Amino acid sequence: MEIMQVIDELVCTRRVAGLGVESLRVLKDQKGALSVATDPVGVPPGKWVFTVSGSAARYAMRDPKITTDLTICGIIDHWDE
Amino acid sequence: MEIMQVIDELVCTRRVAGLGVESLRVLKDQKGALSVATDPVGVPPGKWVFTVSGSAARYAMRDPKITTDLTICGIIDHWDE
Amino acid sequence: MEIMQVIDELVCTRRVAGLGVESLRVLKDQKGALSVATDPVGVPPGKWVFTVSGSAARYAMRDPKITTDLTICGIIDHWDE
Amino acid sequence: MEIMQVIDELVCTRRVAGLGVESLRVLKDQKGALSVATDPVGVPPGKWVFTVSGSAARYAMRDPKITTDLTICGIIDHWDE
Amino acid sequence: MEIMQVIDELVCTRRVAGLGVESLRVLKDQKGALSVATDPVGVPPGKWVFTVSGSAARYAMRDPKITTDLTICGIIDHWDE
Repeated sequence: MEIMQVIDELVCTRRVAGLGVESLRVLKDQKGALSVATDPVGVPPGKWVFTVSGSAARYAMRDPKITTDLTICGIIDHWDE
Repeated sequence: MEIMQVIDELVCTRRVAGLGVESLRVLKDQKGALSVATDPVGVPPGKWVFTVSGSAARYAMRDPKITTDLTICGIIDHWDE
Repeated sequence: MEIMQVIDELVCTRRVAGLGVESLRVLKDQKGALSVATDPVGVPPGKWVFTVSGSAARYAMRDPKITTDLTICGIIDHWDE
Repeated sequence: MEIMQVIDELVCTRRVAGLGVESLRVLKDQKGALSVATDPVGVPPGKWVFTVSGSAARYAMRDPKITTDLTICGIIDHWDE
Repeated sequence: MEIMQVIDELVCTRRVAGLGVESLRVLKDQKGALSVATDPVGVPPGKWVFTVSGSAARYAMRDPKITTDLTICGIIDHWDE
């Protein structure tokens, strides 16, 4: 699992059916690279989280049929950047 | 999921049967590296999209038997490069 | 499988249900990058371990329903950094 | 899927049973890194192809029990290096 | 599949049950990075091999329940470093 910071919400009106209406987050990793994750936890921007990738990203969703490859798993209590 | 820009269509006459007649797109990631994705959304060149990889790339297609590992999931409404 | 060093425990109160109450470890790889793993072995900080990723990370847990993508597989007996 | 160039055939007499007698190709990616792929298309050295990785690499083979993680999916009609 | 050189055996007394008593190898890739693989072929140090990753790494083992993500698939007959 990777350590990342939530930067923003991703607004995406036109999407595949498999994503449903899940809210999406833009995350920044420790090298500054951006990616997009589904968020079953509900994390505000600025927080440090850890994410799970691959098939486990689907199982971490309440509905495992959501077609994601990156899901926020939890908020890190304390993180010194 | 990764943030990428659609660059072009990929013309490929000779292909494995598992790809069917799916249209393919050449994408550029944030570092400039190119890759190829299936496109169930129908995205014109120039648009910024986000893509899903791994087994989820198949589930994001209308037909999950398509042998892809990268699928365009949606068009990002606004993206400042 | 990757060779990594256990750095610390990760404290995370708010997490997805799929992680249960599994203890989490912060690991450092050979390039210094940090990641988070589940730990069925019980490894103290400072030890060098090897980890398994992808779907195998779930099968390496006692309970394969745990939604992890990185699991500590064993402690390396001797490792010269 | 990745864009790669076929460099050579890989000669490998001693192999695991799961690879059968499949012919193997050495490929070079856009950064010059080499890897090995199974080739259900039959591509001569020098050609630019795109490849699929992960579990989809098995499904792209005529026999999905072949234990590969990288399979040539098609020949790109025109590619300017 | 990746091209790697076998460097050493990995001694690991304390390990997860899912690895059984499989022997483990330390491998070096073309950039010099080290990783750990299961070895159903039986390869002595110094040899150049190619490896399979992901779920295919389990299917390449005689027992597909072994929790590995990297397995040696074959010895390359001739390799100029």
